[in-house]
Amino acid sequence: MAARSLLLIRGGCVVNDDSSQEADVLVEDGVVQAVGRHVLPPGDAPAGLRVLDAAGKLVLPGGIDTHTHMQFPFMGSRSVDDFHLGTKAALAGGTTMIMDFAIPHKGHSLIEAFDTWRSWADPKVCCDYSLHVAVTWWSDQGAKKMLALGITGPEGHELSRPEAVEAEATLRAVTIASAVNCPLYVVHVMSKSAAKVVADARRDGKVVYGEPIAAGLGTDGTHHWDKEWLHAAHHVMGPPLRPDPSTPDFLMNLLANDDLTTTGSDNCTFNSCQKALGKDDFTKIPNGVNGVEDRMSIIWEKGVHSGKMDENRFVAVTSTNAAKIFNLYPRKGRIAVGSDADIVIWDPKATRTISAKTHHQAVNFNIFEGMVCHGVPVVTISRGKVAYEAGVFSVSAGDGKFIPRKPFAEYVYKRIKQRDQVKSEKRMLLFPSQLNAVNPWRSKPYFNSLRSF
Amino acid sequence: MAARSLLLIRGGCVVNDDSSQEADVLVEDGVVQAVGRHVLPPGDAPAGLRVLDAAGKLVLPGGIDTHTHMQFPFMGSRSVDDFHLGTKAALAGGTTMIMDFAIPHKGHSLIEAFDTWRSWADPKVCCDYSLHVAVTWWSDQGAKKMLALGITGPEGHELSRPEAVEAEATLRAVTIASAVNCPLYVVHVMSKSAAKVVADARRDGKVVYGEPIAAGLGTDGTHHWDKEWLHAAHHVMGPPLRPDPSTPDFLMNLLANDDLTTTGSDNCTFNSCQKALGKDDFTKIPNGVNGVEDRMSIIWEKGVHSGKMDENRFVAVTSTNAAKIFNLYPRKGRIAVGSDADIVIWDPKATRTISAKTHHQAVNFNIFEGMVCHGVPVVTISRGKVAYEAGVFSVSAGDGKFIPRKPFAEYVYKRIKQRDQVKSEKRMLLFPSQLNAVNPWRSKPYFNSLRSF
Amino acid sequence: MAARSLLLIRGGCVVNDDSSQEADVLVEDGVVQAVGRHVLPPGDAPAGLRVLDAAGKLVLPGGIDTHTHMQFPFMGSRSVDDFHLGTKAALAGGTTMIMDFAIPHKGHSLIEAFDTWRSWADPKVCCDYSLHVAVTWWSDQGAKKMLALGITGPEGHELSRPEAVEAEATLRAVTIASAVNCPLYVVHVMSKSAAKVVADARRDGKVVYGEPIAAGLGTDGTHHWDKEWLHAAHHVMGPPLRPDPSTPDFLMNLLANDDLTTTGSDNCTFNSCQKALGKDDFTKIPNGVNGVEDRMSIIWEKGVHSGKMDENRFVAVTSTNAAKIFNLYPRKGRIAVGSDADIVIWDPKATRTISAKTHHQAVNFNIFEGMVCHGVPVVTISRGKVAYEAGVFSVSAGDGKFIPRKPFAEYVYKRIKQRDQVKSEKRMLLFPSQLNAVNPWRSKPYFNSLRSF
Amino acid sequence: MAARSLLLIRGGCVVNDDSSQEADVLVEDGVVQAVGRHVLPPGDAPAGLRVLDAAGKLVLPGGIDTHTHMQFPFMGSRSVDDFHLGTKAALAGGTTMIMDFAIPHKGHSLIEAFDTWRSWADPKVCCDYSLHVAVTWWSDQGAKKMLALGITGPEGHELSRPEAVEAEATLRAVTIASAVNCPLYVVHVMSKSAAKVVADARRDGKVVYGEPIAAGLGTDGTHHWDKEWLHAAHHVMGPPLRPDPSTPDFLMNLLANDDLTTTGSDNCTFNSCQKALGKDDFTKIPNGVNGVEDRMSIIWEKGVHSGKMDENRFVAVTSTNAAKIFNLYPRKGRIAVGSDADIVIWDPKATRTISAKTHHQAVNFNIFEGMVCHGVPVVTISRGKVAYEAGVFSVSAGDGKFIPRKPFAEYVYKRIKQRDQVKSEKRMLLFPSQLNAVNPWRSKPYFNSLRSF
Repeated sequence: MAARSLLLIRGGCVVNDDSSQEADVLVEDGVVQAVGRHVLPPGDAPAGLRVLDAAGKLVLPGGIDTHTHMQFPFMGSRSVDDFHLGTKAALAGGTTMIMDFAIPHKGHSLIEAFDTWRSWADPKVCCDYSLHVAVTWWSDQGAKKMLALGITGPEGHELSRPEAVEAEATLRAVTIASAVNCPLYVVHVMSKSAAKVVADARRDGKVVYGEPIAAGLGTDGTHHWDKEWLHAAHHVMGPPLRPDPSTPDFLMNLLANDDLTTTGSDNCTFNSCQKALGKDDFTKIPNGVNGVEDRMSIIWEKGVHSGKMDENRFVAVTSTNAAKIFNLYPRKGRIAVGSDADIVIWDPKATRTISAKTHHQAVNFNIFEGMVCHGVPVVTISRGKVAYEAGVFSVSAGDGKFIPRKPFAEYVYKRIKQRDQVKSEKRMLLFPSQLNAVNPWRSKPYFNSLRSF
Repeated sequence: MAARSLLLIRGGCVVNDDSSQEADVLVEDGVVQAVGRHVLPPGDAPAGLRVLDAAGKLVLPGGIDTHTHMQFPFMGSRSVDDFHLGTKAALAGGTTMIMDFAIPHKGHSLIEAFDTWRSWADPKVCCDYSLHVAVTWWSDQGAKKMLALGITGPEGHELSRPEAVEAEATLRAVTIASAVNCPLYVVHVMSKSAAKVVADARRDGKVVYGEPIAAGLGTDGTHHWDKEWLHAAHHVMGPPLRPDPSTPDFLMNLLANDDLTTTGSDNCTFNSCQKALGKDDFTKIPNGVNGVEDRMSIIWEKGVHSGKMDENRFVAVTSTNAAKIFNLYPRKGRIAVGSDADIVIWDPKATRTISAKTHHQAVNFNIFEGMVCHGVPVVTISRGKVAYEAGVFSVSAGDGKFIPRKPFAEYVYKRIKQRDQVKSEKRMLLFPSQLNAVNPWRSKPYFNSLRSF
Repeated sequence: MAARSLLLIRGGCVVNDDSSQEADVLVEDGVVQAVGRHVLPPGDAPAGLRVLDAAGKLVLPGGIDTHTHMQFPFMGSRSVDDFHLGTKAALAGGTTMIMDFAIPHKGHSLIEAFDTWRSWADPKVCCDYSLHVAVTWWSDQGAKKMLALGITGPEGHELSRPEAVEAEATLRAVTIASAVNCPLYVVHVMSKSAAKVVADARRDGKVVYGEPIAAGLGTDGTHHWDKEWLHAAHHVMGPPLRPDPSTPDFLMNLLANDDLTTTGSDNCTFNSCQKALGKDDFTKIPNGVNGVEDRMSIIWEKGVHSGKMDENRFVAVTSTNAAKIFNLYPRKGRIAVGSDADIVIWDPKATRTISAKTHHQAVNFNIFEGMVCHGVPVVTISRGKVAYEAGVFSVSAGDGKFIPRKPFAEYVYKRIKQRDQVKSEKRMLLFPSQLNAVNPWRSKPYFNSLRSF
Repeated sequence: MAARSLLLIRGGCVVNDDSSQEADVLVEDGVVQAVGRHVLPPGDAPAGLRVLDAAGKLVLPGGIDTHTHMQFPFMGSRSVDDFHLGTKAALAGGTTMIMDFAIPHKGHSLIEAFDTWRSWADPKVCCDYSLHVAVTWWSDQGAKKMLALGITGPEGHELSRPEAVEAEATLRAVTIASAVNCPLYVVHVMSKSAAKVVADARRDGKVVYGEPIAAGLGTDGTHHWDKEWLHAAHHVMGPPLRPDPSTPDFLMNLLANDDLTTTGSDNCTFNSCQKALGKDDFTKIPNGVNGVEDRMSIIWEKGVHSGKMDENRFVAVTSTNAAKIFNLYPRKGRIAVGSDADIVIWDPKATRTISAKTHHQAVNFNIFEGMVCHGVPVVTISRGKVAYEAGVFSVSAGDGKFIPRKPFAEYVYKRIKQRDQVKSEKRMLLFPSQLNAVNPWRSKPYFNSLRSF
């Protein structure tokens, strides 16, 4: 009989998105077995029990990065953080799950793209992961499920447009999605205007979620005007970081207030020699920045240390909300009995200085260079196994697992379904002959007319 | 030697958009010769002088309706107010100029449409008119001039969308126009949301004008739910009247505040038997409502009598602003020396009750039925000739003239040109080699990428 | 040894604010002992176990009404729902805790008021309760703690002002509170404008909570124009229900979106003969409406059944958020091990028709008369005891308890404290001599100048 | 018989707020006699005619500065630009009229203050002027006329508050003024938030005008953080310049869009030795900045040259609107027959560099130091007399006149009166007995309750 794997995290403050409590956490075979005081019966410690002291520390659900592009073939190059180094860096930063984008080539099917990404990731990942499948080309069956993926527009460099265009595209997506009673998840909300569109839509009752990213929360687009070409080029991403320096503060306020919901990194890293491909033609600069390792610290520093959010909201935006929206909750995103033991022991008082010299990513530049962040992940536990502790990794390629997700998360779709049902009830109350008189222009199947958009 | 035509309007209060003054107005051969006290030298009245007593009345520039569809072939039918009856009704309501839409069939050129409309209107019009040419189909040279015509989307019934879609389409047009530094004129702003988009764009410095119409200012979309099918059908137009009953009030506030700028009627009238074509299939209801006769009274009642605007603003929104935007100012839109004598003697205290039974339009229904309006046009003068007085017309088909307009009105384009110039100055300040580093994603010609919208 | 009180709620869907799960709930001696499957060991049921079948039903934390005025001496009268009948009605509606206002007479201390209200409530209450203490008069030590009570202005009839004034008062309170880094709880948000002020403040990072009430969410101020005087008079409350009929929908959207946070009823009921005191002088109409019994159903119908919120958000706004803000969480507001067993078995599909003829309140009028609501409380359990089941009460006066609350709930004050700390850290970074040059007008103690407001 | 004073401004482009025209301007005895082509009969020039060549130049109505504090006794000091030097500097900048504030000491009457200011100004002014009388203390007859003066709050240093407080105070003033149907003129709108309050109020139909000042349009509050103490101190004014660097751009957009209406300078200048009084105690820094000379150039550069407004709007915001609001139109604010010949010949292409070394004010610091401005006043004509030409003054102390103003300008009060009338008509439609049922809380005289604010 195989030995049980037993882990006890003792003396910390367990932080979930709804509340915090002084409690021990007992983990067995990768799953949380107990949360509370005295979770072990009195007497000798069981054989094989490992105890981690979390006194004075916070015990958080591991971070979920909703948006990465590891080893992404893009613009004739390939992003340098692959699924191995990328997920190791994630763990070093307190992130225990990433969601990458499987993006089909034109003419290829979504399934093909999915299979390709699985074949790249499975042997390499050090933490759990899942995949979004991006719809970058479109047959005539645009359909509800696809919209739900949150593709607000074409990806890539042609998206590099002024802020007003980002906002306009966001409003368009919101309007279309709402017209067909479909939820919308807006990736990489980069500007104040776009964020306001999302916030206003939510206030108006629409089922819309907005995802800012670490880069947008931690730095801004003034770097594009840096005199050093490489410095500027390393900040090039799409949609661009906005030059208004009050953008990060604004986005963080909305993230604190639940106008924005989750956080990703859009981590898609290229080394200086790759960025230099665009030296004479900026359209050839590969687009992308880092973030998978530093996301949690950036949000803690700018969000929690600044007093904009408390530690519970921090857990919500770095982990729980993503788990809920992407139908992984409460397996992921919560420290509770039965949940996967993806856990971070977090020191809220310690600080670290971000630098490309010390980070664990492959890329040779860090857009947060020199930033001093409160909030340091001391230990990162992936499925009950200590993967990272005080600078040392104990993890192998392939330790992570692909996590399948069922569609139509209740968290997102409960209201959608109810609205569909109420609407159809209302329709049945009308005599067919009255239908025209009541609201003439609504009877025509609305969706068809959307094609003309 | 032909006798001079001399007209003296005596004792009234001359109201222009900037101020009012007690003054007489002397008109000779269709043109204003003097405005002031004692405009005639002392002594006997010249031969042929006609004197109109305006004591206690206002003397206003004749109204300009920026948006009509007379005898418009639409949905297999033709609107019943033709250029003859339609312009007579306009005069009865105090409007001395209309702007109709020449709309080409697919595959036909703009010039062909223009010629067709001229051939319809010239022999029939009783007041001056001008034409917009609508771009309803599009070759690959979409260009700046076309956008300037203010076509915010496809015309016709497929526009019949919920309010959010109207607002979204408006924002899209605003965003595109602004991105290419092009002015935008948004026709028939029907909803609070769309009006807010226009107002916000103006506040943000964009050169955008919004045109509400009489129907939207005077009634609302609750009538679509009327139990009588024909009553409802007679209110069907595109974009639809909005069901929110606070819409007219909101639009009028914005019109008073210069967030909206001009007013039209979108007059496009169909009799009950035509509307009944859609009895069993609402998509066959011809779209359109009346307004060309009642626009001025509606705006006076809801705008001036209510205290939302003063008489000067009334002149601005019913006449002067249209003249400025469409490059007719100060020939039209102002009572001043040298201006065309398109003048209305207006009794601000008198009231009239609107009714299909008494109106001068061909259509057998009036969407403002029963409304009591302060503000009655007592005399309407077109090019110096009394065309309508106390219910009696003295006008013949063909009395009106087509008024050609030069493009690029200074009122609209001064700022546009200055912005183009400042932008190009700024560009020249940059060394070409710096261009990429400074703001990489802006250099690519922006307009091309708009095609993908 | 006293017999244990054991209750098993079997087969329902347990709904907390973060998620729902199919689970049984085991209650012992008034406290939840287990939530999950198989919460009883296999074998015979323990002695004294009562089993409630909740199959097909929802099992919710009992409602918390944040705002009541039971037997309130006001305007020479006394509200007719006293602590006995009022709390019975609460239980019938699924509410297991109320928060009443102890309001001192001018010149009397807060402690005196507190003692008075305790003496009235303790012998009568059928469910748990707590007290707010209102500051209606003010010595020179206005202070941070008082502001935190959320008194946005003088109570009573003089507050009966137009909507713009409510909004202005709210903004003023927000501005003052924010200037001194103090949280704000805004009671009875009645208008769209005031709600927008709260929502905007939250979006701007301020620690502000807004409480709409059942009346504002379920009906509107058009009733004030009712031809029947008594009908109108029964809707008189302060601040007034707003006449804009889109108000309830707007407030519900904001409640769904977490722009508003909790819900109360402001239950303060007067019979027709009391209302009639103002027959000839409306200023003598006692102010107040019902709501304590119907609040939960109103919010379910207008919020959940309409698809605006899901059942988890329903729990948040009817119970959990109040528990968090008023420092009762997780004892109240959650069904979890260790929590008080204040539980409602809720049938989401059943409907009931609200009527003064059938409600359990003392008052002879119901502002929701005739409204058909989905969502019916089938069983209400207070501290583990079935208090109400299918129309039958099993409860006695005094069964409820006063629940003391510790000040400075973490949920509210974590961010406040952090901001205080960050601000003081920043100050220490400045050399005193630099202070003036840096930001001269901030150094003067700000709070003093507030007196001049 | 005294010789006539005759002046001909030839070949320029006459710019009024509504339109521009190529025209000559004939001035006789200080008043405009003709505007147009061939304003002199053919033949010899009349004796005493002076001709100014304006070819290639603009001919503008002289500027009106709505807000100055010349030789103002404040904080134990007195502003160094007195009525003599201050008005000379105004003329050099193209401003031909100022409006100063007569501010009574506590306990003194408004009339006393008025007489004092007249005695200071009359012997010294070089251009026309008028006076506002500020209500800085308040007897129990706060009344409608006083509110109309636009006093939005107490003057002086205690107003130096964060932006949110400025916005809150503005909203409060708007709310009170609107509640009593009184127009409001908000002086020195300094922040984006306050400007937005004004703009929103206007959009909502309220009769509100906002006045930004040259300092707020041309520079920002980041200078308060300048390392040089005196540099920072010279920017201290109340309310303060806002640190958000996007403020000037925002204010200019609103000024261009008629959300803000007039412009002043709040010119109140103190030399460095006076500013230094606050060296050790910033509360002793005398508040105030320059602007009376540079206002026109600043607005041209940032407003017109940037393409935000055209030359007509420039005239509106620097002159015409002030004349309309303060009931001087069309005597002031327009170049038209009968108007005072306060005229500027303006070279829109020339540039000048602002500097304390070259300006004509008494103060030894200029907050716009080094700014290069397009738009240079070449000749300034005051009441038909060339007062300033190419750097040379031809003006004496006392040349200017006090211009009395009648209260209740039509431009401001037409709507107010109409609203009063409509409201009273509506009231008379109600039977007294219905009054309570209709809208109970409105009947109580509203104004009284304002005292509790």
